[in-house]
Amino acid sequence: MTAPKDNGIPDNDVVLTTRSRLARNLADHPFLNRASDMQSALVMQTAQRVMLEAPLSEKTLWMDLDELTPLDRALLVERHLISRHHAESSLHRGVAISSDEHMSIMVNEEDHLRVQVLRRGSRLDETFEQLMRIDSMLEQHLDYAFHDQWGYLAVCPTNVGTGIRFSVMVHLPALRITNELAKVQRAAKELHLAVRGYYGEGSESSGHIYQVSNQVTLGRTEEEIQEEFSKSIIPALIDYERSARNVLMKKNSMLLDDRIQRAYSVLCSARLLKVDEAMKLLSRVRLGAALGHVDLSLQTVDELFVQIQPAHLNQQAQSTLSDNDELELRALLVRNTLSQ
Amino acid sequence: MTAPKDNGIPDNDVVLTTRSRLARNLADHPFLNRASDMQSALVMQTAQRVMLEAPLSEKTLWMDLDELTPLDRALLVERHLISRHHAESSLHRGVAISSDEHMSIMVNEEDHLRVQVLRRGSRLDETFEQLMRIDSMLEQHLDYAFHDQWGYLAVCPTNVGTGIRFSVMVHLPALRITNELAKVQRAAKELHLAVRGYYGEGSESSGHIYQVSNQVTLGRTEEEIQEEFSKSIIPALIDYERSARNVLMKKNSMLLDDRIQRAYSVLCSARLLKVDEAMKLLSRVRLGAALGHVDLSLQTVDELFVQIQPAHLNQQAQSTLSDNDELELRALLVRNTLSQ
Repeated sequence: MTAPKDNGIPDNDVVLTTRSRLARNLADHPFLNRASDMQSALVMQTAQRVMLEAPLSEKTLWMDLDELTPLDRALLVERHLISRHHAESSLHRGVAISSDEHMSIMVNEEDHLRVQVLRRGSRLDETFEQLMRIDSMLEQHLDYAFHDQWGYLAVCPTNVGTGIRFSVMVHLPALRITNELAKVQRAAKELHLAVRGYYGEGSESSGHIYQVSNQVTLGRTEEEIQEEFSKSIIPALIDYERSARNVLMKKNSMLLDDRIQRAYSVLCSARLLKVDEAMKLLSRVRLGAALGHVDLSLQTVDELFVQIQPAHLNQQAQSTLSDNDELELRALLVRNTLSQ
Repeated sequence: MTAPKDNGIPDNDVVLTTRSRLARNLADHPFLNRASDMQSALVMQTAQRVMLEAPLSEKTLWMDLDELTPLDRALLVERHLISRHHAESSLHRGVAISSDEHMSIMVNEEDHLRVQVLRRGSRLDETFEQLMRIDSMLEQHLDYAFHDQWGYLAVCPTNVGTGIRFSVMVHLPALRITNELAKVQRAAKELHLAVRGYYGEGSESSGHIYQVSNQVTLGRTEEEIQEEFSKSIIPALIDYERSARNVLMKKNSMLLDDRIQRAYSVLCSARLLKVDEAMKLLSRVRLGAALGHVDLSLQTVDELFVQIQPAHLNQQAQSTLSDNDELELRALLVRNTLSQ
């Protein structure tokens, strides 16, 4: 199978997004796990000043998370711009976000700074380059905790060294149908990769979407890690899933079509939809869209993955939805979007 | 709610069919549980002669079950014209069926004769009258085993006396959704009613369809039993189910509509359908049709209940279907019928 494209987004049939991120800590400031209230406030102050001064992106928004409502913080989590841990933490904390949402810098998450670049499709080189540019700019203004032998220091040992982590959000519905996911997960473990759910650490897989990331950053250069991830790991994941799709299409096309058509028609007709069920059905429809069995763009499906999340629905309703109203609004949103 | 009608079929929103049947045994012939091969063959001979001579219906077909293929016997079971027990028994056995399929007389099932009249909708009076007419005609030609004190004799004590049994096949999806079925089943038990599945004794309920019948025929006249069944039991069952439907429509119309619309769209889109799933989905669509939420006649749904059964599909295909081919053909049949 040749690689299908969706509006020119590379390998988007399997890879939803690619993310490169750095963990950084300021020198002469205690790590957050041992910082006082005042000391963490000082990190915030320093970081905020730099975020607003350095030309990190065309337009950078700065948000103090304490000043946001819980709904606004949940929206940022659902958009993958901050982590759940960051939203729920009790520290002074903030985030800088580029207006195109490609870049976000969490301040006082686990480390003083977590810089991420996130793009649709398989774009490790692009996100890595952009991340390196941002890192250079920040380093002109900030003095990082660095050890000659260990490299960049971080709260968690797995982040010590380069502090870099690459991850791809991959959609593996065919491997799920053919019961080969366990095999992929074993292979990932041997390669020291972490396999997580749609909302990262501690989250469950939803809609057969998995976040796969490197684990070890110590003792290797950023470039070495990036090369391995870009040249071996991502292509292997894509290949596994595409092969499973090929097998299904050749050997069990009726089963495949049954799953896709049922999912599509339930999404077009349900009056009440729970988020987990919606994710699962959208996953099958996404597979159908990738294979050309359903006339829908991958982008529409991927946007729905986010728009059906609870905070997004509450924001759309501009009120606090009851449980039942949330199920109704989700079903309505999905019906309207798919019937367009 | 007023009683909806479907082409003038009374109370068809809840009652699929009404059946009246008699158990009869010939005098001077041993009961089947103690008859020799020759003795049961003699019963067949006697019965067959009468069936073909007496004007039981405009056109009566006689079938020797031993001469039919297993597929043909299965077809008769699926059409509720003979019982599973009758199809699978190793006795000499036959059946007389009126060409409109309203009447069938099983010979050598549990008793020498089992005479049934089956009609769509709630029609106890009609089926009872027709059954009595057939019984009178048969009695002119046959000498029945009768005891002055006990009445008509039968193999099973529950059939001794009048030998009559009334049953209705009722569709109770709303009682299922509102979790009130257990209550109805308890009430039925107190009234000495048997509650069975779609294919009678020993079968499971399928598609929320239940066969409710009287159990005791001893010590009362046919008319007394009929009066109670007709005036109390059937109206109560109909009322329970309609009340549950009313409650759902008033208090949880979105849930109701969700179940109906999902079922309808899955039936219109599935490529593979198992019989149990199809029955369950058709049940919800039948509820939708009864409430006017789905533009479909109850008759279409009720015919599908029969046409999706395995023997009917094999007959339609005119070949022995593989398991997978059966799932495909069922899905195709349902899709085509619903999209007409």
